[in-house]
Order: sequence, then C-alpha cells, then structure tokens
Amino acid sequence: MGQVDWKGVCDAMRTSDGVFWPMPITLSTDRVTAGGIKPNSEVALVDADNGETMATMKVAEKYSIDKAHECKSVFRTTDAEHPGVKMVMEQGEVNLAGPLKVLSQGGFPERYPGLYMTPAETRATFEKMGWSKVAAFQTRNPMHRSHEYLAKVAIEICDGVLVHSLLGNLKPGDIPAEVRTRTISTLIEKYFAPNTVVQSGYPLDMRYAGPREALLHAVFRQNYGCAYQILGRDHAGVGSYYGPFDAHRIFDEIPADALEIRPMKIDWTFWCYICGGMATARTCPHEDKDRLLVSGTKLRKALSEGEQVAAEFSRPEVLQILREHYQGLEAHERVEVKLSGHSAR
Amino acid sequence: MGQVDWKGVCDAMRTSDGVFWPMPITLSTDRVTAGGIKPNSEVALVDADNGETMATMKVAEKYSIDKAHECKSVFRTTDAEHPGVKMVMEQGEVNLAGPLKVLSQGGFPERYPGLYMTPAETRATFEKMGWSKVAAFQTRNPMHRSHEYLAKVAIEICDGVLVHSLLGNLKPGDIPAEVRTRTISTLIEKYFAPNTVVQSGYPLDMRYAGPREALLHAVFRQNYGCAYQILGRDHAGVGSYYGPFDAHRIFDEIPADALEIRPMKIDWTFWCYICGGMATARTCPHEDKDRLLVSGTKLRKALSEGEQVAAEFSRPEVLQILREHYQGLEAHERVEVKLSGHSAR
Repeated sequence: MGQVDWKGVCDAMRTSDGVFWPMPITLSTDRVTAGGIKPNSEVALVDADNGETMATMKVAEKYSIDKAHECKSVFRTTDAEHPGVKMVMEQGEVNLAGPLKVLSQGGFPERYPGLYMTPAETRATFEKMGWSKVAAFQTRNPMHRSHEYLAKVAIEICDGVLVHSLLGNLKPGDIPAEVRTRTISTLIEKYFAPNTVVQSGYPLDMRYAGPREALLHAVFRQNYGCAYQILGRDHAGVGSYYGPFDAHRIFDEIPADALEIRPMKIDWTFWCYICGGMATARTCPHEDKDRLLVSGTKLRKALSEGEQVAAEFSRPEVLQILREHYQGLEAHERVEVKLSGHSAR
Repeated sequence: MGQVDWKGVCDAMRTSDGVFWPMPITLSTDRVTAGGIKPNSEVALVDADNGETMATMKVAEKYSIDKAHECKSVFRTTDAEHPGVKMVMEQGEVNLAGPLKVLSQGGFPERYPGLYMTPAETRATFEKMGWSKVAAFQTRNPMHRSHEYLAKVAIEICDGVLVHSLLGNLKPGDIPAEVRTRTISTLIEKYFAPNTVVQSGYPLDMRYAGPREALLHAVFRQNYGCAYQILGRDHAGVGSYYGPFDAHRIFDEIPADALEIRPMKIDWTFWCYICGGMATARTCPHEDKDRLLVSGTKLRKALSEGEQVAAEFSRPEVLQILREHYQGLEAHERVEVKLSGHSAR
C-alpha cells in the first residue's frame, strides 16, 4: 500500500479507489536500504527465513508513517506489550510501495497439498459441491467441542462450512500446523456428516487486532467465496485489549455496502451439565458452576501428564492426537536433557 | 376472497392486486342459503359452535369453484383421505365474498391473556426488547428437546425467537392448548436464557398443506414482525403426501420478491449417543441405531402408563406436566367406566 491507501485504510478503512479494507498491508525497510533504491527501480523481495525470492516490486513510492497513528487506528492502543503494536513498532522506518510481480506462494502449495487452496479453488470446490451459502470457520488451534459447536450451528443453516486453518508463522510452543490439521480432519471424519465441511488452510500471521482483524478475516473469506464469517467471543483478540463482543459490534458500525459477507455472531460456548448439551451464554440460563470450563493451560497440563480430559470438552480421538504430540515433545525434551547431561560429564 | 383472487392464489399464489398469498381463504355456504342473499346485502357471519356474530359481510360476489382444482393446486392431491382435501370437499357449493366488518376476535384475547397477541403487539414487543432479527417457531404440540434445539439454533444467530403456538381447533385426543402452553412456559423458564424468547399464540386451524402451508405460516410470521420462519422436516405435512423437504424447497421456487421473511431450514432432529448431544441429519454422521427415536405413540403410552422417558428426548419438567395430564385423563376414564359398570348392574 502506498501512503494515500495507508492513510485511507487507517482512518476510514477504504483504499484511495474506494475498496473497503480494514488493515494496512505495507512493506517496510530501514533508511539505509531505502536510500539505496532509485525511484521506479525493481527490487527483489526475499524471504528472510530461507532466502527465496517471493516477488519483485517496482518501487514507485517511499514514505514514512506515523506508527502510533496506525496502532491507535488499527489496534486501539499503542501499548508496546500488544503483539500487533510490537510488530508495527519493530518495522523499518521507510515503507516501499509499487506494482508487484508475485513469484512464489511461499512453499504452501507444496507443504500442504489438498489443504492449501486459492480463493479460485475454494470457489470452484463450493460450486462443484452445489453449495451457494458457505460459512467460514477460522481456526489457529485444534478444534474442541466448542469449535465443533460453532461450525455445526453454521451447518444447520448453511450449505456447508469452510474450516479454514491459519498456516502462517506460529509462536514457539504452539501446536504445529501438521498436528492441528490432523486433529481437525479426524474430527471431521468422525463427527461431521459427509459433504458438509471443506477443510482448508491459508497463509496468514495473526495481528491480534480484534475487531479490525475480524473485518480483515471477513474480507478474505468473502474472496474465498463464503457468505458468512463465524465470529466467536473475542475474535482475533489478545489479553484484555478488546471487549468480548467488539469484533461482533464493528460489523454494525461499518457501512452496509462495505462487505457482502455477513458475520455469524456466536456467544461464549461450553458444555452445560444442566442443559445436558453444548450451549452458549445465549442459549443456557445456568451458572458457571454448572458449566465445564477447561483453560488452555489446564488442558495442556492434562495432555502432557496423561490425565483424563472430559469428553464433553474434546473428542477422545482429538485428545489422543494431542496427547501423542505433547508426550512426544516431553520424550524429546527428556532425551535432550539426557544428552546434554551426558556431554557435560 | 372473490373468484379472481381465488383463481390467482390457486394458480400463481397472487391476489388480483399482486399480493403474494399461497392459500385461498374463502367462505362457503350451501346453494339454498346463498340463493336467499340479495346482491350487496349485508349478512352476519356466525360462529357455528357458540352462536357469536364474528363479522358482517357485504356480499358483493357469489361464485362456485372447481374444488378439485383448488385441492390439486394447494394440497397437490385430491385424495379424500387428506384432511385438508376433506375440509375443502365438505365446504358448501357457493363461495361468498365482499367487504368484511370484524366484530369479534373469537374470544381468544380473553381466553389467552398475555399469550394471544396481534401482529402489532408482537412487533411492539420486539421493538421494546431491542430485537430486529426474530425467528418464528411454529408449534401445535408441547416442545421436546428436538423443538428446543430448533429454537436454540435460531437464538444463536438471531436476537430472539417467537415461540408461536397454534390456538385453533384441535382434533379429539390432542393435548389441550392450556397444557401445551404450560409445558412450553416451563421449558422456557428452566432451559432458555432470559430475554431470548417471546411466547405467544395465534388462532389457526391446520390445513396440512405442507409446502403451501409453510408459505402461509411464513406470510403470517412476516406480519407478526419476524425475519425467519423456522422449518423442520415435513412442515405442516400429514401422512406421506409431501416429501420431507418439499416445504423447504418451495421457498426457492417462489419469486425472490414474494416474501421478506426468510426460511430457516433445519433437518430431522434427535439426540445422538455417539455425538453426545442434539444433532440433525446434517450435523451427525452416525446411524439410526445410535440415535434416540421416540414416536408420538410410544411417548403417549409411556406417559399414560408412568414409564420412564429419556431426558435426552424431553425435559423432566415437561414430561411431569404431560404425565399429570395423561394420568388425569386416565383416572377420568376409569371413573367413567366404573360408573357405567355400576349403573348397568
């Protein structure tokens, strides 16, 4: 994005030609590198991790931004503890913009065959299945019963669901994409009716921008051919920067013509022992003590240490895959400890 | 409806002034009565059950219809076993039409205070509650868990649900409206979150026209201020006259501008022991043997004879009310038998 688009997107969620777009997509570099680029020269954009040339850019524009302004607009905070704010603050001082030639899809098609799909491919898949009303379920985690419930509410009223996993960069300690997608395919195979789910993945890093990122996810899913974006509680949020329903509300605050895709807003989801079923705060009148609550920390501990996890929280088949993953890690850690102990002797 | 409207509704579901209307609403009488009415004279329309004058009509038109044509158009059959066909076939030979003056609401407001509401009243209620997206759930029976599930799927994605009970004439042996509405209020009180349900009733006799009647129910609910009409399997059907999803499909066959209200189409609903929850044929991949199926006959027998009914089929509080109703009936029957035995001696 050039400077005018950057400003339009920060301030009014519109590019200069009027396209609705909720978060800046920019390319930054340091002053020295930027200074060495002549106007309208073509530069290679190289993946820092593996040296692959991802694209070339004809640099039409070099500009600096008010980072605090971007953060306030997009993240509603300039707190450096916010991971999205941190990313912006750590960017180079100069943004480059200009026409791109894309040379690589970053290895995703090869690493995730059958899972990685372009918007044209998901649209063709939906058409082949005879689906016209598809809901997108975004996930960056394995799916437990609460996620299954969200997807199934959508399946009740749509032609099908696109279970769309993030295949972007992960923080250390997160469950690898391969394990996550295996838990999801197992869940789909055992607990979803045939021809109601398309499982796919797409390359994106989380920015944790809460409401603005919920809009971005919706824009993407509109491009992938979906009619609804499922939004749970605190979608794309982090810490307590956003209210639990800010990402729901923002869809009522944007102009009616901004998006064709509609939000499917669903409340906090859990198993209730009195209801005897999955429910949300909108469909269960009972108290917290009647509800099964398992924190991420508690779940990880139970899985690592081989403790039981209630089937009302997660399907046994899903838990088994996660248990193997965590116990593999632990064994791996034990091996490492042993080796280092050995070499230290 | 006059003759032109009758024909337009039968053939194209439109009145002569273009209003979408899926089923004829006519008034019939016999030839002798019709012969005695002078053109443009005003006649009283009297409730045959209690002699109350319901309205007056200025008789502008007298006409005869092709009953078989109405039945084929509306019921898709002329089989005299079909209860709707039977109603039409038993009508008088002459239809009367003309401007009406309504004098009575048939005692419904008095008999069902707080439950009977006009469309203006439900709309005002929704507005007071801040609801703009309301789903209508039609019921002529007590609500068991499958009905609760349908309503709750709607609550997950709407502002609220109008649980709308039929208060029209019942067949002998049906559960009285007072008992049905009591089971429903108990269910709402114990198992629905506050401010998610409006319980109401409306006067209508079933015609069992399946798809055409689903459209009629939708027209009514649009008038009551609803955005969605929930449609389960074989809505308003009887016997095997209609395919289980004919009443879903007809909403795709009518012109897009015919209705503002949208159908919320939901499949066959049940408890699945493998899913460990309520599900439908769209969200559960398991087999019939894994699902809890209780027929109406089996349920009635269990309730009359004090047998257990699974809590996965119906809430204990609902079953208790029904058990008292059936056992009251039985006691009553026993008393009658004893007395007649005594008097025969």
